Amino acid sequence: MKDVILGIDIGGTNTKFGFLDRDGISLVQGELSTNEGETVHDFLRVLYQEVMTKFKKIEDEANLIGVGVGAPNGNYYTGTIENAPNLKWHGSVPLVDLLKQYFKMPVFLTNDANAAAIGEMVYGGAKNMNNFVVITLGTGLGSGIVVNGQLVYGHDGNAGEIGHTLVNVNGRGRMCGCGRKGCLETYVSATGIKRTVYKLLADSTDYSELRSVSFNDLTAEMITQAAKRGDKIAIDAFEYTGKVLGMKLADTVAHLSPEAIFLFGGLVRAEEFLFDPVRYHMEKNLLHIFKGKVKILPSGLGLNNTAVMGAAALAWNEMERGATA
Amino acid sequence: MKDVILGIDIGGTNTKFGFLDRDGISLVQGELSTNEGETVHDFLRVLYQEVMTKFKKIEDEANLIGVGVGAPNGNYYTGTIENAPNLKWHGSVPLVDLLKQYFKMPVFLTNDANAAAIGEMVYGGAKNMNNFVVITLGTGLGSGIVVNGQLVYGHDGNAGEIGHTLVNVNGRGRMCGCGRKGCLETYVSATGIKRTVYKLLADSTDYSELRSVSFNDLTAEMITQAAKRGDKIAIDAFEYTGKVLGMKLADTVAHLSPEAIFLFGGLVRAEEFLFDPVRYHMEKNLLHIFKGKVKILPSGLGLNNTAVMGAAALAWNEMERGATA
Repeated sequence: MKDVILGIDIGGTNTKFGFLDRDGISLVQGELSTNEGETVHDFLRVLYQEVMTKFKKIEDEANLIGVGVGAPNGNYYTGTIENAPNLKWHGSVPLVDLLKQYFKMPVFLTNDANAAAIGEMVYGGAKNMNNFVVITLGTGLGSGIVVNGQLVYGHDGNAGEIGHTLVNVNGRGRMCGCGRKGCLETYVSATGIKRTVYKLLADSTDYSELRSVSFNDLTAEMITQAAKRGDKIAIDAFEYTGKVLGMKLADTVAHLSPEAIFLFGGLVRAEEFLFDPVRYHMEKNLLHIFKGKVKILPSGLGLNNTAVMGAAALAWNEMERGATA
Repeated sequence: MKDVILGIDIGGTNTKFGFLDRDGISLVQGELSTNEGETVHDFLRVLYQEVMTKFKKIEDEANLIGVGVGAPNGNYYTGTIENAPNLKWHGSVPLVDLLKQYFKMPVFLTNDANAAAIGEMVYGGAKNMNNFVVITLGTGLGSGIVVNGQLVYGHDGNAGEIGHTLVNVNGRGRMCGCGRKGCLETYVSATGIKRTVYKLLADSTDYSELRSVSFNDLTAEMITQAAKRGDKIAIDAFEYTGKVLGMKLADTVAHLSPEAIFLFGGLVRAEEFLFDPVRYHMEKNLLHIFKGKVKILPSGLGLNNTAVMGAAALAWNEMERGATA
């Protein structure tokens, strides 16, 4: 029998789960729609059935000892999901308490970016690091910050919102979903680079294969592929995205002096089109004492199933620290 | 006999020291020129003599158990002072090792802003806080960050350089002593507000008592007194200083979600002329989840002898955590 953790990643569309051992090996995994049922209670009933059906396959070899959950707006301190704009459950959802009615064991919750950071520490490229930052590039820009080997939650569980630092202050810049203008994620995210492509298509007369794609149809993956084929607009869009991110990461370094900053999510597939300008512009904007010291790295978790790994890593990490949630 | 710590604050001009008990009460204190002798070895010989002369007065009641030092560019990890621009000892000075030749007990070093943060935690307004930030407003802008009850040193000991985050990126803004342009401390510090006064005197035709003072003679205290007398230029200078600080602190909150941000140093004497615009512009620039939650407070250490208190607090804090440096 080996100890395993159930990792659950609740996304806006799908929920993925898996049973992972301490080395990050997934023994069995599954997926369902996050929109199952009308209420969170309906959803959890279906989730539990699916999870136990899968667990039956490994019950002779696996001992389930804990549950880790990553979810948008998941609050580590309160165990609740708070007003997540991309989920249909509104208000404050006491997810940890609800899950404990099914699982009589420790249950831990955090948001997806924090889970990614813990995943990096437990399974990924930060195994031997005590001070690092993970930037997740998806629809928005999330971040998880680790200081002295511990995740930074702040006094209310809401720390790590680097996506909402301001590129432009004084009310200038792009409209953000949060209601303000100029937030970093309006420039640096899958959505942000789409906006940059459209700005460049408007401002220039260069040929681009992206001129034939509507805003709604355009994806970050298309921009990545276009850049790899030499499309100037796509390359310039990555250059601009990397420049804005690099500049703002210089501020992050001035606060935290991390050993490394990991980039996580689909945009990372653009490789040097993204990493080169991020590194160049971060270095250019760093105070001299930090120059040449901070690594910009792709996530060591790879690109598949990483959110479930992060959720499982959260629980492994907490249980090894002796937390009892 | 009560246990005491020797706190030493090494400044560009003077070095102050005191023997403090666990409650922050100074039993006896002293001061000497930081420029004593030619080398750091000469200086430490004189310092030790002065310190032991003072200690003689309390040796029947006090048991010296450790030494804490705050110094510009003091590195907690290495125990060295690294290329401090305001000290005449150049290169890397192994201060902890040198002091241990005199004091056969634990010796701890950090920079002045970190010492201020630990002082706030041990003796000041942050006694019951685990997540807070201290901003020191002197010639420059220093900062000390506490997360989960621990000071943030980063992977190399250099974390907490909020004074060198960028108000303007892309190479715009005021020249900074660090060689870059647009650093926060070029706007927000005793020097920064002088520059703002001169900018306002240049741009406007308003009467101001400060028009009769040269740049070299102008002090932050004069600007504070002028503001309290209703001088429009001085009030506007505080408004602008507070606005820039408030805007950038919104980014700090997005990283760390602290319970409070303490302002420390002479500029704090301006009271509401500084605090009102800082609070207003920070709130205005905060992401909604942080609004109304982060207190902007004056240092609870008061305005006298605070750096020595911070240095002593460093050693108390380390020794209670069981560190053996």
